[in-house]
Amino acid sequence: MKSIRHLIFYVLSALCGAASDISTLEKWGVFEIELKGPEQGNPFLDVRLGAVFTDGNATVLVPGFYDGAGVYKIRFSPGSTGDWRYETKSNRWELTGKLGRFAVTPPGPRNHGPVHVHNTYHFAYADSTPFKQIGTTIYNWTDTPDELQEETLRTLAAAPFNKVRMLLTPQPTPYQNRFAPPRWPFGTPPSQWDFTRFNPDYFRHIEARIEQLGALGIEADVILFNPYGKFGFETMDAVSDERYVRYIVARLGAYHNIWWSLANEYDFLRTKTDADWDRLGTLLQQCDPHQRLRSIHNGSIIFDHNKPWITHVSMQNGAAVEEPGRAEMYRGVWRKPVVYDEVKYEGVTQYRWGNLTGQEMVHRFWCGTVAGTYVGHGDYFSTFEEDTWTSFGGKLSGQSAPRLAFLRKILEESPAQGIDPIDKWQDVNTGGVSGLYYLTYFGQSTPPEWRFKLYKNGVSEGQRYQVEIIDTWNMTVTPVEGDFVTKKMDNYYYSDTSGRVVRLPSNPGIAIRVRRIGEDGKLAVTVLPND
Amino acid sequence: MKSIRHLIFYVLSALCGAASDISTLEKWGVFEIELKGPEQGNPFLDVRLGAVFTDGNATVLVPGFYDGAGVYKIRFSPGSTGDWRYETKSNRWELTGKLGRFAVTPPGPRNHGPVHVHNTYHFAYADSTPFKQIGTTIYNWTDTPDELQEETLRTLAAAPFNKVRMLLTPQPTPYQNRFAPPRWPFGTPPSQWDFTRFNPDYFRHIEARIEQLGALGIEADVILFNPYGKFGFETMDAVSDERYVRYIVARLGAYHNIWWSLANEYDFLRTKTDADWDRLGTLLQQCDPHQRLRSIHNGSIIFDHNKPWITHVSMQNGAAVEEPGRAEMYRGVWRKPVVYDEVKYEGVTQYRWGNLTGQEMVHRFWCGTVAGTYVGHGDYFSTFEEDTWTSFGGKLSGQSAPRLAFLRKILEESPAQGIDPIDKWQDVNTGGVSGLYYLTYFGQSTPPEWRFKLYKNGVSEGQRYQVEIIDTWNMTVTPVEGDFVTKKMDNYYYSDTSGRVVRLPSNPGIAIRVRRIGEDGKLAVTVLPND
Repeated sequence: MKSIRHLIFYVLSALCGAASDISTLEKWGVFEIELKGPEQGNPFLDVRLGAVFTDGNATVLVPGFYDGAGVYKIRFSPGSTGDWRYETKSNRWELTGKLGRFAVTPPGPRNHGPVHVHNTYHFAYADSTPFKQIGTTIYNWTDTPDELQEETLRTLAAAPFNKVRMLLTPQPTPYQNRFAPPRWPFGTPPSQWDFTRFNPDYFRHIEARIEQLGALGIEADVILFNPYGKFGFETMDAVSDERYVRYIVARLGAYHNIWWSLANEYDFLRTKTDADWDRLGTLLQQCDPHQRLRSIHNGSIIFDHNKPWITHVSMQNGAAVEEPGRAEMYRGVWRKPVVYDEVKYEGVTQYRWGNLTGQEMVHRFWCGTVAGTYVGHGDYFSTFEEDTWTSFGGKLSGQSAPRLAFLRKILEESPAQGIDPIDKWQDVNTGGVSGLYYLTYFGQSTPPEWRFKLYKNGVSEGQRYQVEIIDTWNMTVTPVEGDFVTKKMDNYYYSDTSGRVVRLPSNPGIAIRVRRIGEDGKLAVTVLPND
Repeated sequence: MKSIRHLIFYVLSALCGAASDISTLEKWGVFEIELKGPEQGNPFLDVRLGAVFTDGNATVLVPGFYDGAGVYKIRFSPGSTGDWRYETKSNRWELTGKLGRFAVTPPGPRNHGPVHVHNTYHFAYADSTPFKQIGTTIYNWTDTPDELQEETLRTLAAAPFNKVRMLLTPQPTPYQNRFAPPRWPFGTPPSQWDFTRFNPDYFRHIEARIEQLGALGIEADVILFNPYGKFGFETMDAVSDERYVRYIVARLGAYHNIWWSLANEYDFLRTKTDADWDRLGTLLQQCDPHQRLRSIHNGSIIFDHNKPWITHVSMQNGAAVEEPGRAEMYRGVWRKPVVYDEVKYEGVTQYRWGNLTGQEMVHRFWCGTVAGTYVGHGDYFSTFEEDTWTSFGGKLSGQSAPRLAFLRKILEESPAQGIDPIDKWQDVNTGGVSGLYYLTYFGQSTPPEWRFKLYKNGVSEGQRYQVEIIDTWNMTVTPVEGDFVTKKMDNYYYSDTSGRVVRLPSNPGIAIRVRRIGEDGKLAVTVLPND
């Protein structure tokens, strides 16, 4: 997929509407208009630019941005195939009224489009392919030396992660005593920022990294604000904050793998109030023609995720995924997807937020999974000063990643509509789709056996099921011989007709997968319900 | 406390302002104006009535109501001592412009006033006495034969409960095959209700019961709407719903022990939408001059408790209090007091919502307590058809009540500002007030010993603490000999200087109480912070 098309429009750009060499791009790719315009004054402040795109059905107003050196750009990612036309709008004669057209072709086989909320608690790509989130966090990876960034990409290429959380503005860290960030988001040195002038180089670099993540099939959950001060970005006033949001959205929003995380640990940023966040989140919703996913991540004070601009819950709470009964609880509160983006990190440090064993990291993913939620990974082994994966990228040091790859495979074989609690507030260890698919996770407990028993929803007598034993740490799936056939047990449950029980291994981290066998003897197929 | 003053105003009522026999009542008592007015037409629809009360500082507009047989009433509960005056307002000449005055004296020793939200997550009476909720549910007790209602009151007088949940309109039950409800809220027989005509007798009866609860020191958490249909009240239209809310508020709102529960299992009432509940809850907030506590109770779908009319969370979720880590989670979501009003009932039935052992019922209260929340009790032993305590009152059959009395005593000795998590999302089993008071509950686990260890907040070296072992089931408090003296252990914790550990009993349901010893050798006193 060629995701960016560079088109230069000069004086005669209007003519291209009639030209035969009409440019093409894939659906969900990035179409870019590039224009020459004024350099004098402060173009970031003085020049307004956008374009109206239409394919005859949809009409989309897309904001542009100033890319420095007299260059202006507008980026648009079309969501449908066919012929598109556009007309630019600006308060400068040399930028306004430019006409153009292009053709959008069907997406290539690896292009599924942007991710959106699906079936209330879950995610899917625009082409309906389920997106089963296995996230990781690499806060400052784009601020490290280039060779380290390349290593991070190689690590990601071999890792199970399909979403990365990353900061858009640098965080001061001990590592930077040796390696100062090579670029800054604003054009003047630290502590004398001119917040009215962005540094296009800084963002071009981030865009390139986001494109590389996209090529690896990884969503970029970019964090607009963070509380890790000292560089002074946290002192921006309201007008500067809004200008920053608009600039970020105009520059990055067309990339199909972008998610907006308004802030990391929003409540630790003492220079903003809840009302500020609500205003900036609403702005994010209003000024983004591509309507990428939007969230806000907490420190210790939970945000009101009922706000209409929030598409899904991004939660820091490690305790919540220590067992599935807790993990489920935030789902029903907001009736949105819950992503436990920070659950403490696998690692060895003096901090208790970075001391999980690999087993505990994997356990938390499984707890979140059977509760119908999603979890994020971190890796915090201080191999050299503070240069951990979760701060700077590089190599993974922990033991969880292969087990998360195993979990991802299990999830990719799970129903497209997502795993939901089967018998909410009663059997907290079981998620799935009633009558089709069940995943029961025993966690740290090691029961010697499991009696085949299904909650009544979706079940009737005589249904046949396949049972498998999953070892979440040793990464094995062991089928139990013979089918299980349902028989009514009492007002609530069905058992196997011959009351079969399944012997379980004696180690922790065991799960049971139960899948319905259809009339044809094959595993029953589950389909995406309509949204 | 004489809580109701009956005053009859005739033609010369305006003169009483000058009379020397000025009536008096206690602060937070009920002052009642009674007027004669029109009987013709439909007074419930045709006549508007209210009164403006003022003591020179506060001015309160209080709605009145029609009490049948040409009698109109206005009830007001003054929140300050001194001289009060009023003037009635009506769209009928014989009811409007009536003037009067009365004197409000300080409250008697057992009169603490209404309960309100205190310190974000807790409750206190108006005189700042803490209210530590130990609730129970007796849905239909006011619809049973009088002798059973009297027995219920005798049971309550000896029970630990300080709040009762009860329905305001009858619920059809098998019990009623033998004992039909003796009164109905509307004036005509079932299924032909005239929703424009209330039955004053019905509500006079409920008022008398609410006064009796008040005399026992019990809050009446009255449920305005319920989904237990068949009598047809669930078919009221929007105008009738609103008239009903206004009538209930005008009649009952002046009683100091009233709490409003807008609905029981709101989501099971299929004739109303979330928007209806929001409208009715907002009305409740707007039309209640006394601003009693307001909540809404769920079935399986959680309401948005961020709504400004909701003062505290009334939650049905039994799983949430199976362990303290879950119980805490709803607190931070809404930053309001959380009352787990339905956590399944102690009992023996065919239903899994009524099958808790006494031990499990008590366990759930303790889980809620150390998590900084409150819990409600139910007792569901089907001694005869469906005549259980929680449906109809009478006698308690379970084993939990004495243990809840024991817990209530522990709570009454706990800090006035309420128990909050000490180290949120880290040590879920410990609640208290940092540096003063700690309650750690081990639940079903039975560790052989507990090492003295306090999280750093509020703690410094050399503080002295008393440690006690609490057996929550056997109702004993056993002091551990000798003081414990704090010493810094690491970045997070303080231990005892000599590293002392406490041996624990081998049974489940054990808790540890740790209390600070002041400079004077006495237990440190905790005070109510300012709201």
